[in-house]
Amino acid sequence: MKITIAQLNYHIGNFEGNLKKMLAATAKAKEQGSDIVVFGELAVTGYPPRDFLEFDDFIRSSEEVVEKLAKAAVGIAIVVGAPSRNPVIEGKDLFNSAYFLADGKIVQKEHKALLPTYDIFDEYRYFEPASTFNVVHYKGKKIALTVCEDIWNVGNENPLYTICPLDELKEQNPDFVLNLSASPFNFSHANNRIHVLKANIELYGKPMFYVNHVGAQTEIIFDGGSIVISPDGKVHDELPYFEECIRSYELNDVVKGGLNREQEKDKMTLIHNALITGIKDYFGKLGLKKAILGLSGGIDSAVVAVLAQRALGAENVRVLLMPSQFSSDHSVNDARQLAQNLNVQYDIINIQEAYSAYENMLKPHFAATTFDVTEENIQARIRGMLLMAMSNKFGNIVLNTSNKSESAVGYGTLYGDMAGGLSVIGDVYKTEVFELARFMNKDAEVIPVNTITKPPSAELRPDQVDADSLPPYDVLDGLLYQYIEKRQGPKELVEMGFDEKLVRRVLKMVNRNEFKRVQVAPVLRVSAKAFGMGRRMPIVGKYLN
Amino acid sequence: MKITIAQLNYHIGNFEGNLKKMLAATAKAKEQGSDIVVFGELAVTGYPPRDFLEFDDFIRSSEEVVEKLAKAAVGIAIVVGAPSRNPVIEGKDLFNSAYFLADGKIVQKEHKALLPTYDIFDEYRYFEPASTFNVVHYKGKKIALTVCEDIWNVGNENPLYTICPLDELKEQNPDFVLNLSASPFNFSHANNRIHVLKANIELYGKPMFYVNHVGAQTEIIFDGGSIVISPDGKVHDELPYFEECIRSYELNDVVKGGLNREQEKDKMTLIHNALITGIKDYFGKLGLKKAILGLSGGIDSAVVAVLAQRALGAENVRVLLMPSQFSSDHSVNDARQLAQNLNVQYDIINIQEAYSAYENMLKPHFAATTFDVTEENIQARIRGMLLMAMSNKFGNIVLNTSNKSESAVGYGTLYGDMAGGLSVIGDVYKTEVFELARFMNKDAEVIPVNTITKPPSAELRPDQVDADSLPPYDVLDGLLYQYIEKRQGPKELVEMGFDEKLVRRVLKMVNRNEFKRVQVAPVLRVSAKAFGMGRRMPIVGKYLN
Repeated sequence: MKITIAQLNYHIGNFEGNLKKMLAATAKAKEQGSDIVVFGELAVTGYPPRDFLEFDDFIRSSEEVVEKLAKAAVGIAIVVGAPSRNPVIEGKDLFNSAYFLADGKIVQKEHKALLPTYDIFDEYRYFEPASTFNVVHYKGKKIALTVCEDIWNVGNENPLYTICPLDELKEQNPDFVLNLSASPFNFSHANNRIHVLKANIELYGKPMFYVNHVGAQTEIIFDGGSIVISPDGKVHDELPYFEECIRSYELNDVVKGGLNREQEKDKMTLIHNALITGIKDYFGKLGLKKAILGLSGGIDSAVVAVLAQRALGAENVRVLLMPSQFSSDHSVNDARQLAQNLNVQYDIINIQEAYSAYENMLKPHFAATTFDVTEENIQARIRGMLLMAMSNKFGNIVLNTSNKSESAVGYGTLYGDMAGGLSVIGDVYKTEVFELARFMNKDAEVIPVNTITKPPSAELRPDQVDADSLPPYDVLDGLLYQYIEKRQGPKELVEMGFDEKLVRRVLKMVNRNEFKRVQVAPVLRVSAKAFGMGRRMPIVGKYLN
Repeated sequence: MKITIAQLNYHIGNFEGNLKKMLAATAKAKEQGSDIVVFGELAVTGYPPRDFLEFDDFIRSSEEVVEKLAKAAVGIAIVVGAPSRNPVIEGKDLFNSAYFLADGKIVQKEHKALLPTYDIFDEYRYFEPASTFNVVHYKGKKIALTVCEDIWNVGNENPLYTICPLDELKEQNPDFVLNLSASPFNFSHANNRIHVLKANIELYGKPMFYVNHVGAQTEIIFDGGSIVISPDGKVHDELPYFEECIRSYELNDVVKGGLNREQEKDKMTLIHNALITGIKDYFGKLGLKKAILGLSGGIDSAVVAVLAQRALGAENVRVLLMPSQFSSDHSVNDARQLAQNLNVQYDIINIQEAYSAYENMLKPHFAATTFDVTEENIQARIRGMLLMAMSNKFGNIVLNTSNKSESAVGYGTLYGDMAGGLSVIGDVYKTEVFELARFMNKDAEVIPVNTITKPPSAELRPDQVDADSLPPYDVLDGLLYQYIEKRQGPKELVEMGFDEKLVRRVLKMVNRNEFKRVQVAPVLRVSAKAFGMGRRMPIVGKYLN
């Protein structure tokens, strides 16, 4: 028996586009003499469809695609993820299902039992969990159909669910397991995935075909990396990362095992490629082409400019240099040098005239006050406004350049440097931004070295550096990581050796600035805990602030 | 037996404050000779605590409060909602529990079984559902403890859950039912609540004490309206709306029934008072006092100004009139008249100087282009920026004045009129804004009549009116309501009689403008489907656009 796995880049709600891709992959699988072609979880709708699932019209559109795929399932079986309706009146109205299509019709539907409802996942919002489990009989083989999370409740110290679907299915002695996934990227997730698959092999000993999505849906990035794993626990194949791929396997070869095609995984390579995928698909799927961003001469905007140029092409990226009286010469020079290195269009607009206008307009109201954060914010907002004006006039989408460290502590101006349609590095800590810059420069100096080596500064008042207002980034980032990713409280953080006063101060900054973070663009997610839909915090909360 | 229900305004994560309130209420209940005092769902933490629940430190703080309450439960029993730990390793780590405290200790914990995970609710994100159900034995009575949603799976055409906790508990023949709720306001919810309670009475025939929260937590508003209902289905008492209240009842009187204290519910009164509560608690719980907003002379900002003045007091509200060359005289006059009626500080800042500055700065880049939405947005953004500058300088929080209709179709400028810390009427359709304005004027002309009667206009270019770009609001709002609140698709909408071209156009506008709505302030929720945390839509989706 020959099995094809199709690792594709779907588009949420683009039923026609998704169908077309799957029909093409089915044709290719047939050419390769395959018996079964397997697509990802909710491949018909794209993942995550979110509250579109509450629209009956959306479900009907999905059902029509499944019907069309069923008609194409002649001479080959198609396994595809799509919502299905719960025939029982009690409980949620939908299941998250794996459809088995063959002989031109829907042969069987098996439903997802473990519904991830944490971080970015909201599946119990929409779906009823499966309560029955049946293998599919096909060409003399018994196939266990599972959907993503269904295989993730093994090998954990603290299992999230009370059951394991494969415990139920193993009674029926399946020959192999198909897993239809939509398992989003974070830089350590690919390793976790292999760990979980090996834990399943250890427990159940059946060959497994794990099929993932690839491509980004707003903030969520799918890295692909689909896996075929043999009963001997060896990775028979691992598909490429961040690209579509269709490959076929003889079941007997997989059963035999012995191959090991596990790939090297380098954190910076993964983050770099993930962010490029995130930009590319945000633009591509929204039918957009052109980006714009402000280049300050600092490292954050430099890194975003490089990513944008690599994702969209130099001809589609435009940058603005917007110096003020507080900008240093080297900032303008470094920014210009970078624009030239990247071969992108750059323009210089000095913000002084608008700044003076605001000063004049506010003078009667600001009498007897002194220069403070207000005037700093005015500068940042003039820049945000100029970028938006260019965006409105020419259709270039503004890329936001805030990093995770400053976003965490609220070191940024709402409607100023926090503006933009997409936050590119909002899930990358400042220390990681430095790593990324060095990674980008590994073959040639793309980012001027001075940009990497000079002390970070917002340049909003004379001789300002970040270190005036913030702890050193290596300390800050370590603390933020423990608080944000690891949910450690003040007591644990002090026990880890962080200074108590610093802990109190930083945690308060993080919690108090939630009001800013709710108003920013979607953040491309590369860590296990990004700001945005995966981290849901009260604003009026009084905890640790 | 005497039972006290305490309808209190909690504050998320403010453990000390919540404890203090509950101790005071307990003392009052003891004075009234009560045997039991009942607080709301998750009263210890405030509701919803959201991802604070993932912090062990947060749970420990909650446990300490429960211990302190237990110590105070001498001579009276205390029933209070708080998270508790799941002792079983499989499944979620927490339960959403009702604690029964008496004789200075924790006597019993009963857990919530039905975990709302829809709209604004994310409970399955945090909690394991109850699987066992036990009445509490106390002073010769058997008490069924339920938490909010636990009683909501009856009387519905399409039940969301497969079980009803009271079906399990009725076998143990309880004498009465306590329900600890945190049931957020929407303008039809109070009626739904009474409907559900009556459905429970019909099914189980036991007296019920339904205890709700009151007060707002960012966008979510609790209206109170706690209910005591007798076995004859009559509303024995209905507590006031939007205020704290502690009241005691003789169980025998409730069992006897015959009283009917059900209150009148008027939509505009409810919305008006809900929004005032929303503003008041946003400011109060964040330790803020003063607000600022832009007054355009139009109806949206007028209504928000009135609400702000009623919530915070005239002395804490400041308004800016920011006319441009396109502003009509009547706009400025109407705005000034309103400010005078409200007795709030107003200042006039003409935006021309900043507008000219931007024109000059952008001239070299905008050569050969014509006036379009870019220049309109620049005006809106200058206004947003002036408000933010005043906010930064003087600490007044900017109130956003966008209504639900314009937010739905994207008729607003990001970082301009869409700026602000709190969206006051973002869940109120334009036609409802008119109703609200007339409601506010019912005793005296607060809002100048001209503001209510003139055709709505953004005044961003000569002779502009909303009707140039949008369908008439009565048609638009009807369509938006069916799409947003009722999740009707294009087919159903056309069948309802809406013009097909209009349907396609409006649905596309709604879906395309999701990118704007993700960047706005929290929206005070007054309907069953508000923009924000309760409506989760993909941005790169290709559905209906």
